Formats: sequence, C-alpha cells, structure tokens
Amino acid sequence: MSTPLKIGLMGLGTVGQGVLRVLRKNADEIERRIGRKLVVTHIATKDLDRNSESLEGITVSDDALTCVRSADVDVVVEVMGGYNIAKQVTLAAIERGKPVVTANKALLAEHGNEIFAAAAKAGVGLGFEAAVAGGIPIIKAVREGLAGNRIDSLAGIINGTCNYILTQMTVKGQTFADALSDAQKLGYAEADPTFDVEGVDAAHKLTILASIAFGIPLSFGAVAREGISKITAQDIQIALTLGYRIKLLGIAQRSDAGVSLRVHPTLVPDDQLIAKVDGVVNAVVVNGNAVGQVGFYGRGAGGDPTASAIVADLIDVARSLGVPQAQRVPVLAFQPGAMKALPLLAIADIESCYYLRLRVADEPGVLKAITGTLAESDISIEAILQKEPREHEDATVALITSAVKESKFDAAMQRLLALPFVREGASRIRVEHFKS
Amino acid sequence: MSTPLKIGLMGLGTVGQGVLRVLRKNADEIERRIGRKLVVTHIATKDLDRNSESLEGITVSDDALTCVRSADVDVVVEVMGGYNIAKQVTLAAIERGKPVVTANKALLAEHGNEIFAAAAKAGVGLGFEAAVAGGIPIIKAVREGLAGNRIDSLAGIINGTCNYILTQMTVKGQTFADALSDAQKLGYAEADPTFDVEGVDAAHKLTILASIAFGIPLSFGAVAREGISKITAQDIQIALTLGYRIKLLGIAQRSDAGVSLRVHPTLVPDDQLIAKVDGVVNAVVVNGNAVGQVGFYGRGAGGDPTASAIVADLIDVARSLGVPQAQRVPVLAFQPGAMKALPLLAIADIESCYYLRLRVADEPGVLKAITGTLAESDISIEAILQKEPREHEDATVALITSAVKESKFDAAMQRLLALPFVREGASRIRVEHFKS
Repeated sequence: MSTPLKIGLMGLGTVGQGVLRVLRKNADEIERRIGRKLVVTHIATKDLDRNSESLEGITVSDDALTCVRSADVDVVVEVMGGYNIAKQVTLAAIERGKPVVTANKALLAEHGNEIFAAAAKAGVGLGFEAAVAGGIPIIKAVREGLAGNRIDSLAGIINGTCNYILTQMTVKGQTFADALSDAQKLGYAEADPTFDVEGVDAAHKLTILASIAFGIPLSFGAVAREGISKITAQDIQIALTLGYRIKLLGIAQRSDAGVSLRVHPTLVPDDQLIAKVDGVVNAVVVNGNAVGQVGFYGRGAGGDPTASAIVADLIDVARSLGVPQAQRVPVLAFQPGAMKALPLLAIADIESCYYLRLRVADEPGVLKAITGTLAESDISIEAILQKEPREHEDATVALITSAVKESKFDAAMQRLLALPFVREGASRIRVEHFKS
Repeated sequence: MSTPLKIGLMGLGTVGQGVLRVLRKNADEIERRIGRKLVVTHIATKDLDRNSESLEGITVSDDALTCVRSADVDVVVEVMGGYNIAKQVTLAAIERGKPVVTANKALLAEHGNEIFAAAAKAGVGLGFEAAVAGGIPIIKAVREGLAGNRIDSLAGIINGTCNYILTQMTVKGQTFADALSDAQKLGYAEADPTFDVEGVDAAHKLTILASIAFGIPLSFGAVAREGISKITAQDIQIALTLGYRIKLLGIAQRSDAGVSLRVHPTLVPDDQLIAKVDGVVNAVVVNGNAVGQVGFYGRGAGGDPTASAIVADLIDVARSLGVPQAQRVPVLAFQPGAMKALPLLAIADIESCYYLRLRVADEPGVLKAITGTLAESDISIEAILQKEPREHEDATVALITSAVKESKFDAAMQRLLALPFVREGASRIRVEHFKS
C-alpha cells in the first residue's frame, strides 16, 4: 500500500481548487490515516486562468476523456459539473475499472440509475459524499452509520442559497427580491437563481438521499417541487408569531403506502433544532426506527468543505481497491439486487398540516364563514390569528390546520377562495412538526 | 457471503436487549444491506429475569468466556460493562481472531491502549461507535467522514444526565439537588450519580474522541475534570441574562503547543446550535481545517439508540472479515504505527474566557476595586452585570473576561477573593464561543 494513489482531477473551479489545496495542506495527516499518499497527477480544465494553486508536476489538459484513460490515473474526481461531458467521463472511468468520486448531484439525480448500474456491473466504486450537503458526512451517516435502522424519514435544509435568503427575510424583514439580490452580491446565488430558488438543486440532493435511505432507485421525476420565490415577508412574520420558522426542506418519507419525495417551503416549530439553522448552513434530520431522530449540520458549499467530502471518499476508495465487491459498502447502501422500486406517492396523497393565510374584507361574519367552511370539510384548526387591518385595508386571517390529506385540503381551500369576502393573494404552506 | 454472521452477545441489560430487538425487527433491512444475516447464537448473562425478548434458539449461559470461545461465535458484542470480566472477554475474543463490538467507554478509555494494541497485533476489528454519544454515528464521522481534515478541536454534550439536569435548572429554575432528584426518579441518573455529575463518564467518551480525532494514545489520565454539582440556579440565570447557556462540555483542542483535554461546565453563547441542545440529547461539534464546523446531535443513551450504533459496527465488521488490515479503516482512525503521543497541556496552561460571579458587600467603590484588580492583572472584561441587592443582602457582581491563560486568571481571582468586601461563595466557569 505504499505507492501513491494517482488522481485525475476533472474540473478546476472552486471545488477542484479546494481538492488540490486540501490534499496538499493535509497530506501528512492523510498519509497517517491510510498509509499511502493521495496525489493529483492529471487535471482536465477548460479554464486555467482562474486557478490560484500551483500546478507544478501535474499534467494539465483540456481533454477530460484522455485524462481519464491515462495509465497515470487510478481514480477520477469529477468536479466539472453539468451533464454531457461529466457523464461521458464518469462512464469512461467506470468502463476502465477506475473508481469515480463526484460532487455532481444533478448528474447522479437525473442519470444515476444508468451510472450506478454500470458501476455495479463493473464492480467499481463510486463516491458522492460531496454531492449532498457539502462537508456534512451525511451520505456516510445514512449509508453506514445508521445501517442498523430501517430509515423512516429524513428532512433537510440542503440548499444554502435558499436558507440564506429565508434567514435574511426573517431577520431583516426583507422581501424575497431584496434578499435574493443581496445573496447574488455575496456570491451565494447565481445570476440566474432558478435552479436554487425553485428547489431543483434541493430535489437533486433529496433524490440521492432517498435512494440510499430507502434502497429505492433514483427517482428525481417523482419529487414534488415548490420553490421559495412566492414566500412573502408577511408570511414569515406571521409564522414567527405563531411559533414557526419557514425553511425550504427536502423531505423523504416512507409509509406502508409508499414513499413521498418533496421539496417545498415548510413551517417548522421554532423549538426544533433544524428551525435554528440559519444562513448558508445545511442541516439534515434523519429518523430511524432504532436511533430515533439524529441531526447533522455544517457548511453545505464552498471549496474546502466540499473538498473535505471528496477527500474522505478518496480515502474510502483507496482502501477499497481490490476488495471483493460483496465486502465493500454498496454504492447505494443496499446490495444492487436488493434495491426495490417502492410506490411513489403523488403529492395530492400526502398528509400534512397546512398554514393558510387569507386576505379578507374587513366585515362581520368572516371568521365564522372561514371556520365553518373548514369544519364542513372536516378539517381541524390548530391555531388561528386575525390581524387588525389598518383603515381602508383588507384584513388578514392566518391559520394552521391539523394533519389532512393534501387533496382534501386543496378542495377546502378552493371553497374558501370562492367566498365573496376573500381577496386575491392567499398563501398556503405545509407544516412539519418533527415529532420523534 | 450467504452464511449468517454468528454473534455472541455478552450482557443482556438494556443495551443487550436492544441489540436483540433491533437485529430482529430490522433483519430484512440488514440483509438487504449486507447480503447476509446477523444472528445472535450465544448470550452470556448473569441476570436472565429482566429479559423481555424471546431467547428461543439461542444458547444462554452465565459464563462469558466459554461463549467467546464457542466455535458458533464469529463476533463478540460486549455490553456487560465494567472492567474486569469485560476486559478478559475482549482480550480473549481478540486472541481468537474474533472481532469485538463494544459499548464499554470506561474500559476503552482506561485500558484502551492495551486493548487496541492487542487488536492491531492480531489484525482483529474492534467497533466502539456505541461507546460515545449513543446513536449518533460520531465515531464514524470523525474517523472516516472527516478523514480529509486535520481535526483541530471538538466539543460535545456527551453526558445526557448532566444535560438533563442543567436543562431542568435552566427551564424550571430548579436547584442542582432538585433537578438531580427528578432525574433519578425518571431513571436518567443512577442512585449514586457521581460518575455522571462529576464528569467521569464524559471524560471517558472525550478520551476516545480525542484519540481518533488527533491520532494520539488514549489519555484518560490527562483529562482535566470538573462536574456540575457546584453550578447554582443563580449562575444559570445570570448566564441567561448575559446571553449564554451553561452546558457540561467535553472539549479536546489541538494547538502547536499540544493537546488539551477537559470536561467542565461551560458558558456557551445562546445563538450557537449546541447551546440549544436540551434534555438527554447529546451533541458533538467538530472543527476540521477543511470542513469548518460540523455538528451532530441525537439520543446519547437508551437500548435502541445504542443498539443502532452496535448493529452499524456489526455490519462494518461483517464486511471487513478477511479484508487485509492495511485496507481496513484503522480502529483508531490512524495507522497503528502513525499514532503520536502529542504533549498534553495542563489545565493551568489553557487559554479561555471566564465567567466570574462574586458576592460582595453592598458598599461604594466595589466595582472600581474589582475592575481595577483585573486591569492590573492585564485581564479585559467583555461583559459585566451588577444586580441590585435586596435589603440587608450582599450584592452580586458577575463578569465575563476575554481570553486569558487559566493560571493568570486564577491568580487574579485569588487577589479578588482577598479583597475585604468580597464574601464566600464565588463561582468561576469557563466560556467557549465556538467561533468557526
């Protein structure tokens, strides 16, 4: 085991540079751990100019596929992102029996079934700790640390951009647009923020987490998705008054009926630890049938935190080389032949509590009509708040229901919206209580 | 890999029964993960009466050593606790090449160097996830998930009894004695609570964490230790006013000078997540030089949560059987030959901020004398609070200093205590800010 493990690094952006930096600064500590060196021998990049690390002694090219095929590369680290070339590179490495360590959540969530099947068939390792929640070792925790459990659910703040925006809206009372603009200035949000704020990135990560938690195929298409762009400062303030914080959560739940996968803004009771996770920090809460509730938090992005996850995967990969596949940790936590396609529930069929805010005319009988309509729909109200309107303005009524099937709640909501005194601009947000 | 892994379970108390229960209820899920069954074939217990699980088909005896030697036992789970027989059992298993999974923090912390050396020499696996923080997979996280880091420090709420007592004192304003008595009634504290409330149990766990974080030998004797029995409800209330919560923390820090290991009550800023971990929950915060701050929380005790950790270890052990030692995760995170005995710092040499509460006569010039004494000692005051005394009572002055070496602070405190207006009954508690 004394020869260095030779790494081909595909991509030299923030994360790629982080990998180089962390491998160098922690070289001694890593060798103390595994008894051999991890050395980057090849780098493929199209954009050398941005690099600040020394590349002395490393073969650099802009041709990723040639790098992958080099006899001087034992393991491939894919941090270029995107779908097309990243997928080619990943499959080419697997075909040559070279393990791949990747941070590419989008590729795995959308093309993972093909990629993981190829890896299983070839008996090649595939590490993706960096793909979910950055530096938090959540993949290892779910796949190995909690392997004694039947995992029943997990929920996470797995998009730092959204958590930053929602935190700013909460703390400063900012609008979504202003908080987004600040996030863009700080580099926490892209110029086109759709991917983050509409929940696509969180859905990618949730897809991967659900697969290793439940042993189901990657099911990105089944993730119900709702972003944070319609959350108003008013909703955040009312939620605070009622004892809740609003977080964008990715939620995966298993029941006898099947699995539900969803990403949406969520009211969380403010005495739950996950409600207190602010800013760009990520957090994941897992419920196992032996361990109960376990929580994890840390930095979900950035060069060094993501590199921390990649290097941990490289160390695992270095150890697993030559070990028979049956004795390795299965890439998706379960033996390839034991993966099961459980029924995926439609969002209309999930059961949840709901927060509902209505703008109503300031006239007598409004509360009676609202509570009456919900009672007729057999929906209980857990909390209600009516705010006194300023003169000539509409009144606001906000309430939280007990658990009810989404389709049933939506039908009741349509009846409420049809009431003559209800104005445009209602808001409906799901509520999770994290009872353990 | 299709033959069952045969487990000898040493001890059938709360944890042992939890192991049986979890192995049974999650048998299918476990087999999906590892492709073989985990089956308890032998149990050694002196106390069968308390058992509520069926023991059909299991060989039960009161002779642990005979169980260990049975040809029908591949792996030994040691959950009997204590030192003497537990140590014999562990060494006997190692001698026969049988991996051991243990929850026995006391044994490992105090006799671990001998046990780990025997395991390394024999090339036998040793799992101890259950020994620290119950169901939280913190050993795996530090040893593998954060393996890309040089770990600089960690701090944890690793004794649920103390955290329960401190939480009750905070929330209900109870005295230590009353909160302890309630904890005893609820089964959270032993009849003789010394082991928990004086920090011995936390020191055991910290010893293990520090060893795998820094790659140092187990150094229980070097852990500076202070319990919570002298914490008053008044200190807790003053800390709240100043924006802090008091927690019993185990802290391990590495600096150029060496390693400091300590367990003591600590003021933690109330905006830190670890300050918000209440009741019997455990939490550990780790600082790595790549990942920054990562946190973990969950149930630190109980049959099923502890069994969750033990079964995860059993799964790892099942996979590692027959794998060459150089390719396995080293038991103490670092290659046996790469462990380093770093200098262990005396508590007098650590640097910390301090909370100091003084009872003083209600007379003019008191604050001037106190602040003057600290200024002469070159110690800065970060916050100060004087509470108006009730008539004929002493006044209270509480303050928080900036970081200062403990020996220097203690010398200044002696000068303060010698001032004529200072009464008996001062309190001094360390402060940690968890800046990441």
